[in-house]
Amino acid sequence: MEQLKQGADALFILLGAVMVLAMHAGFAFLELGTVRHKNQVNALVKILVDFCVSTLVYFFVGYTVAYGVDFMVGAGTLAQNNGYALVKFFFLLTFAAAIPAIISGGIAERAKFGPQLMATAVIVGLAYPLVEGAVWNNRFGFEDWLQSVTGAPMHDFAGSVVVHAFGGWIALPAVLILGARRNRYRKDGAMSAHPPSSIPFLALGSWILAVGWFGFNVMSAQTIDKISGLVAVNSLMALVGGTLVAVLMGKNDPGFAYNGPLAGLVAVCAGSDIMHPAGALVVGAIAGAIFVVMFTLVQNRWKIDDVLGVWPLHGLCGAWGGMAAGVFGQQALGGIGGVNLGTQVLGTVIVVLCALATGGLVYGVLNKVAGLRLSQEEEFEGADLSIHRIKATPEQEVSW
Amino acid sequence: MEQLKQGADALFILLGAVMVLAMHAGFAFLELGTVRHKNQVNALVKILVDFCVSTLVYFFVGYTVAYGVDFMVGAGTLAQNNGYALVKFFFLLTFAAAIPAIISGGIAERAKFGPQLMATAVIVGLAYPLVEGAVWNNRFGFEDWLQSVTGAPMHDFAGSVVVHAFGGWIALPAVLILGARRNRYRKDGAMSAHPPSSIPFLALGSWILAVGWFGFNVMSAQTIDKISGLVAVNSLMALVGGTLVAVLMGKNDPGFAYNGPLAGLVAVCAGSDIMHPAGALVVGAIAGAIFVVMFTLVQNRWKIDDVLGVWPLHGLCGAWGGMAAGVFGQQALGGIGGVNLGTQVLGTVIVVLCALATGGLVYGVLNKVAGLRLSQEEEFEGADLSIHRIKATPEQEVSW
Amino acid sequence: MEQLKQGADALFILLGAVMVLAMHAGFAFLELGTVRHKNQVNALVKILVDFCVSTLVYFFVGYTVAYGVDFMVGAGTLAQNNGYALVKFFFLLTFAAAIPAIISGGIAERAKFGPQLMATAVIVGLAYPLVEGAVWNNRFGFEDWLQSVTGAPMHDFAGSVVVHAFGGWIALPAVLILGARRNRYRKDGAMSAHPPSSIPFLALGSWILAVGWFGFNVMSAQTIDKISGLVAVNSLMALVGGTLVAVLMGKNDPGFAYNGPLAGLVAVCAGSDIMHPAGALVVGAIAGAIFVVMFTLVQNRWKIDDVLGVWPLHGLCGAWGGMAAGVFGQQALGGIGGVNLGTQVLGTVIVVLCALATGGLVYGVLNKVAGLRLSQEEEFEGADLSIHRIKATPEQEVSW
Repeated sequence: MEQLKQGADALFILLGAVMVLAMHAGFAFLELGTVRHKNQVNALVKILVDFCVSTLVYFFVGYTVAYGVDFMVGAGTLAQNNGYALVKFFFLLTFAAAIPAIISGGIAERAKFGPQLMATAVIVGLAYPLVEGAVWNNRFGFEDWLQSVTGAPMHDFAGSVVVHAFGGWIALPAVLILGARRNRYRKDGAMSAHPPSSIPFLALGSWILAVGWFGFNVMSAQTIDKISGLVAVNSLMALVGGTLVAVLMGKNDPGFAYNGPLAGLVAVCAGSDIMHPAGALVVGAIAGAIFVVMFTLVQNRWKIDDVLGVWPLHGLCGAWGGMAAGVFGQQALGGIGGVNLGTQVLGTVIVVLCALATGGLVYGVLNKVAGLRLSQEEEFEGADLSIHRIKATPEQEVSW
Repeated sequence: MEQLKQGADALFILLGAVMVLAMHAGFAFLELGTVRHKNQVNALVKILVDFCVSTLVYFFVGYTVAYGVDFMVGAGTLAQNNGYALVKFFFLLTFAAAIPAIISGGIAERAKFGPQLMATAVIVGLAYPLVEGAVWNNRFGFEDWLQSVTGAPMHDFAGSVVVHAFGGWIALPAVLILGARRNRYRKDGAMSAHPPSSIPFLALGSWILAVGWFGFNVMSAQTIDKISGLVAVNSLMALVGGTLVAVLMGKNDPGFAYNGPLAGLVAVCAGSDIMHPAGALVVGAIAGAIFVVMFTLVQNRWKIDDVLGVWPLHGLCGAWGGMAAGVFGQQALGGIGGVNLGTQVLGTVIVVLCALATGGLVYGVLNKVAGLRLSQEEEFEGADLSIHRIKATPEQEVSW
Repeated sequence: MEQLKQGADALFILLGAVMVLAMHAGFAFLELGTVRHKNQVNALVKILVDFCVSTLVYFFVGYTVAYGVDFMVGAGTLAQNNGYALVKFFFLLTFAAAIPAIISGGIAERAKFGPQLMATAVIVGLAYPLVEGAVWNNRFGFEDWLQSVTGAPMHDFAGSVVVHAFGGWIALPAVLILGARRNRYRKDGAMSAHPPSSIPFLALGSWILAVGWFGFNVMSAQTIDKISGLVAVNSLMALVGGTLVAVLMGKNDPGFAYNGPLAGLVAVCAGSDIMHPAGALVVGAIAGAIFVVMFTLVQNRWKIDDVLGVWPLHGLCGAWGGMAAGVFGQQALGGIGGVNLGTQVLGTVIVVLCALATGGLVYGVLNKVAGLRLSQEEEFEGADLSIHRIKATPEQEVSW
């Protein structure tokens, strides 16, 4: 019986890890479809290598920073309890590795490969584990302090704030430091649209992310006795709300249509275990609206060249989700309660500030020391030919 | 122990829900690959938005119609029993949302977006729940009545009839009311082939559907104590039978090859829990033959422009599956027994008639009131540019 | 309780079966992306039909050869114990069917369809079950004999040797018998590069394979009480090691980058349950190096036209994995122990010799009797038009 429970727990969190691992393919194809054809290969390689570097630094450093656990003991010891501790690491790694995957979409099409990997190592090995440890493991007594100040600990069930807002708000300074793609905004005020290279691959990425997200959210319960159908259906409703509003406000534009579910899902993570499905629908719908309005504003008015719109998508919808948990989690709105809007706002603001500091520092230093940006010629040629010496569909060109 | 059982049940049906959710990506890519290039984006957006509209109407109306359950209580109540009731809703929603996804493939490339969504709302919110409730929940005493008339209740384990035949037979009047794509059949009797735009994406869609189908069928057991390896292997054998016959009869045509597994899987749903694997192989093989013969007949002889062949695939193979359960489920043919061919035929015919009535009524009225069809110019331009103002691979065109 | 355990076991191995079934889509897209555009359709149809033929011969013959179980009893008997025996068959079938999928990548772009299917039938129906039965079921007292000779039975947890080395070493004689693609190596010593047709589809195939591999390895435990997080994290670490080394040594080439994880995963199968994650990282890293070095040597120096590099990838990395389990599984290197390097080397060599004999015999005879190779004209036209009478993106050509 105890053994069955233990095996079931290991399977449960493993399924979450595998589903969120698959989401990294989703990140890759979402970026591939959104960037121009000449940068598709780079999108694919970046996401994969970022994931691998993240695994190394998180296994050997970051996980210990966040949870005080390390794995430098014999395999026999690691295999005890069906190796549950290892699978839990795997699951949380897939979250950690989402941070560089998020940033990647913002700085696409003009960043150098090497410096970006260095940023990944620092962020996943150190910065993220500090934030994650504070919110999810009470490192530095952060949750205790929040509770003493506001009367409640911060509630971020599956990481609207810890993962998405943190990643999205790191991306903002990175995008600003890097500057816009050449020819994107001309001196005379005109813009060149730089439309996506492939709506099918963009949509494929979004589908993979949306499906995998049910592992991201549901398996955040970490053991099978705590599995909650409420989390699953709230995720579903937020996906629906985000999509429908993005389609309506985005006037059937497929880019908005396929980022809509993601906006909803980013926002629902934090409170998915305590909101009513109707509340989750509203939270997702508002996230869809935030994404469409802010993406347009950022790109066209503010002329910030955040290629995939990761700041609106993860940064703003994530922050919205952290705060929304404090609203729609309340019993008065059909929620389970136990949350406090003040706590949620304060906690979210603190994480956002940490992200801004991390992004400014890491990318600022790397820009000085190593240079973040491809040369003008490399960028014109495309990252595929410059860095990888091949195009996305090379054979067609050769055989014609 | 009871808690572990409960958690395991919630996980079991959640996995089914997630796998069938993924099948909707499969529907999207199967349609995208089969339609012409100028309608690819529309295929992607239609399936996603149809799914979201389905979720709303089924959550707030349809599920209550079928099962008498509603979710307008506090989240704390919903979260009881690990929220099993909610995940069961999620699982059954992914079935309900398959109805518009099936129809979508038939009416592709020339239907307006708005009226199609209205049809989705009516069908998933009302028509399908009535049929589903009758067969799977004895609404109106339907199963009791069938038993009193024929001596057995109808057996449709995973929905060959309730889902696939119902969807496919709604599509038939919809396709007829809408009419063929312009230039598909010329006045002089000649035909324009309109070949698929992308075999790789067509095949990707089929793979996603085939893999997800194991959730569709196996998780129809609904609780883990009732999981049956027989269902899994029968699904496998039907997939194999359908594929091999479709490849042979379709002379290696990849469109037939990649619809073959789906034909077999459609047909096996109903009796997958009671047939012998060798029986399932035969059922799938016959379904493969039905698809190849009838698809060719419908398209080339009868000149009905059912773009993806959803009437032969889901309508005919689904009806065949309903009846086949009454044959190959018999103990004399190695099955588990408890089925009656007369019942299966009668039940299938009733569902088919309901579908024809639903399709004729809903699409007939919408055609009068709102108009179902794109204008000649919009259709010529393609739904992508007309409705979504962008093509599937826009960047290539811009940068050249 | 016993019933819950039984249901959980059935679910556990079913999840493995479904994940490895999905890997066959991965094989299809990896091959599709790597071959030239004119052979994409053929790659898709081959993998699907090979899988179906494998299912038939393994169900009716091969599984009985390997395990002495047959399914020619009533469905009621098969459904006992939640049909666990059937799902176990399904799981092991997906391994067996990987053999022709591996070979397929080596002989791509110039092999006839029919003879290849005959080879599949013989290999999956007979040759593989004999090897599988010997190593995993002590057929012929093979494991007993190894133990008596070397002091330990062979350890191949998830099939580095039984599946991957066996498949890869069958492919070598097949590729040699078939000869290089026309125009690949010219008489004057020059080579024509034949670059991949689509890096995105190649990468998609690799992602699907990598994700599904966690089912391949973890579910090799076969029952949920034996699930091991160590297997999961060792797989992860080998994936990471393989990728990073392949990217470094392959100078950011996306083909190497996306075969790197596969190299690591092939090598880790055998010892994934007994090595320390740091050991798995090293095993994967060495596999990545083996792949890059040997792929280049084989293609450019030895001029063996193994299109996807399946001999280096599966054959060499698989053999390396079998031997590595004997090294990194040792307690001295942090492993769990119970393995013997001598046994591993001897066992691996025996399997490799069986594979060479199988490949030489089967493809040699078929080459004499039926002819393995497309005619010069068919090959020039491409397998898509020659065999399937359609191209991968036919619609574009027609509508222009």
